[in-house]
Amino acid sequence: MNFNANKIIKGIEAPPIAEAMSWISSVPSNRPLINLCQAVPSYPPAESLTDEIGRLAKRPETSLYSDILGIAPLRQELAQSLSADYQASIAAENIAITAGCNQAFATTMMALAESGDNVILPVPYYFNHHMWLEMLGIQPRYLQAINSGSTTPVAADAAPLIDERTRAIILCSPNNPTGGIYPAKTIEEFHALAKARGIALVVDETYKDFRADPAPPHGLFKLKDWGDNFIHLYSFSKVYALTGYRVGSVTAGPAFLAELEKILDCITICAPTISQGAALYGLRSLEDWKNQKLATAKEKAAALRQVFTHPGLSYKLLSVGAFFAYIQHPFSDDAKTVAKRLAQKHDLLALPGSMFGPGQEQYLRLAFANVEAGVMPDVVARLIESQS
Amino acid sequence: MNFNANKIIKGIEAPPIAEAMSWISSVPSNRPLINLCQAVPSYPPAESLTDEIGRLAKRPETSLYSDILGIAPLRQELAQSLSADYQASIAAENIAITAGCNQAFATTMMALAESGDNVILPVPYYFNHHMWLEMLGIQPRYLQAINSGSTTPVAADAAPLIDERTRAIILCSPNNPTGGIYPAKTIEEFHALAKARGIALVVDETYKDFRADPAPPHGLFKLKDWGDNFIHLYSFSKVYALTGYRVGSVTAGPAFLAELEKILDCITICAPTISQGAALYGLRSLEDWKNQKLATAKEKAAALRQVFTHPGLSYKLLSVGAFFAYIQHPFSDDAKTVAKRLAQKHDLLALPGSMFGPGQEQYLRLAFANVEAGVMPDVVARLIESQS
Repeated sequence: MNFNANKIIKGIEAPPIAEAMSWISSVPSNRPLINLCQAVPSYPPAESLTDEIGRLAKRPETSLYSDILGIAPLRQELAQSLSADYQASIAAENIAITAGCNQAFATTMMALAESGDNVILPVPYYFNHHMWLEMLGIQPRYLQAINSGSTTPVAADAAPLIDERTRAIILCSPNNPTGGIYPAKTIEEFHALAKARGIALVVDETYKDFRADPAPPHGLFKLKDWGDNFIHLYSFSKVYALTGYRVGSVTAGPAFLAELEKILDCITICAPTISQGAALYGLRSLEDWKNQKLATAKEKAAALRQVFTHPGLSYKLLSVGAFFAYIQHPFSDDAKTVAKRLAQKHDLLALPGSMFGPGQEQYLRLAFANVEAGVMPDVVARLIESQS
Repeated sequence: MNFNANKIIKGIEAPPIAEAMSWISSVPSNRPLINLCQAVPSYPPAESLTDEIGRLAKRPETSLYSDILGIAPLRQELAQSLSADYQASIAAENIAITAGCNQAFATTMMALAESGDNVILPVPYYFNHHMWLEMLGIQPRYLQAINSGSTTPVAADAAPLIDERTRAIILCSPNNPTGGIYPAKTIEEFHALAKARGIALVVDETYKDFRADPAPPHGLFKLKDWGDNFIHLYSFSKVYALTGYRVGSVTAGPAFLAELEKILDCITICAPTISQGAALYGLRSLEDWKNQKLATAKEKAAALRQVFTHPGLSYKLLSVGAFFAYIQHPFSDDAKTVAKRLAQKHDLLALPGSMFGPGQEQYLRLAFANVEAGVMPDVVARLIESQS
């Protein structure tokens, strides 16, 4: 190109998953690849949901823009669903529907912070969170989450990182990339810190539905003034196997959503109307289906835990959730070298820890929800194969 | 909220269409509102297209993320379609699919310019373009497009506005808000200027399919090195009546698309897969349907032109396209006062010129594609009613 582009964007590395996919595109493989690079449910959406999408396509309003913050029945239904999950009282006016949770994060950060501001970001982080902060010129202040075997960050460690230009603390629980679930108490301690310092606590809870514990993930929504400091991000992608439909949400105080609305208008006008209808159907009609999938996810995680007890395996399982496991590799090579070798020589594609932040050279992320429980022994067999 | 939000975002006015809708929500109306505030086709998508969407919903790949830049067959088909329309040779690798044309613009501007840079923006402008530039801290340098009855900007007028921090010239043709179509020669002159100054020419051609003239809108794609300076934005929303599906495109050089890809990944990961499938079907199968709709659009525009010849009408028609007309009101009040009065007292909702830039107090935009040709006499009857 014969013009100057944005130097900040130019300085950012290519999207990790696209880069990882490029490692394998040119290498002839003897056996099918086990692809553990992206969090995608291994099953299609419910048949009744795809029937509903066909019906929605026939309604004239489906082809039209919705309100910027989403269709009213979905905002209402999600408010009720969250109220039930968190044993709290959340209203439709607290809900903004977005085109996926990346958009929920992107617009939230833009509404919160300006170039030169900073935010507290636990490491390892979800790479798109970090990329977006870089793009906006918002400085991430790294909070090491991995401490003596635990992957849960500690609020007291964050306190000294906050200054007058800090705008938010960002958490992701259940976590991407580690799979770890933060205890309610931890999230509440971060909230108390954010409140005391007059900044926002942003929690990406994309994977909340896959928790085994039926208790609420935290008690923040029970606070009468939760909207003063707490912003909740969510996605319909994983729970209803709708990744390609792009529908997620931001739950926050109405004053914050009024700011968010301006950005959403410029970025997509509204989330796809048909996808909003699909999410609404999921909330209303797929409770049983969701619970079945949760049971399957538990089995997969159990299968992964089990195969990692193999005595010949030098990789260590640090944490495991419903979609992700974070593992420690036994080599002195950096994480990318190990991940590339696994992909090109052992037909196992996982992302290197280095894509999730500084100090992660010893780790790999396995997005294992993509494969069936029966594949887990092969995963470990290929890891063992890579040791020699 | 009990935290500091981004002051730039706070300083930006609420989205115009949401604001305009709020004018009428509290006012009891005697007769049905004629709503001319948003560009939405008055008809649903083709029945065969909604059949196809139902079929797409049943394919497993539809529920999955696509490549960030879009599904390969759509990139290929759009490249062929643009090659035919512009009598040029455009490749699939020149195409990025976006979640609508607002996203095409938003990501393009972010890839081009940083806070403190500036771009040349003809006035009146499309309001979301301006809002987004403000949000990014990119200074719009206004180029007056309305000159002695014409709504077409002049390249020579733009030249003195360009300095070392200018990153792009932005055009929109057929224009939103005026409906005016810039002559090929004008667009080519702007391109020559951009090339000479080493900046990008970004042309939003969302409404290109509704031109009556079968000749290409301009000759830029015929230039061997068009990708060096030219960036083309497009939407499937209007041509196939898919506004709620959120699918558009950026056509540019591959080096620029590599930058764009990083931003798209963070903002939505990919355009909705089902919407991409719908757009593909449109390109492959709806040529006849499109031509019928183009004929209807011509009739509507002719009907509008005709009713504006009414001798009792003091409003003047400045320009008219397939979706928009830009009209001059006869009052000394500012445009918002006039638009609000029309909405609340005369049941006619149009956006005030002031939403499209400085110096537009004498104008209103009519997004008349929303209504049938038979409604045009009522539009003029209500305008005349407002004169007394």
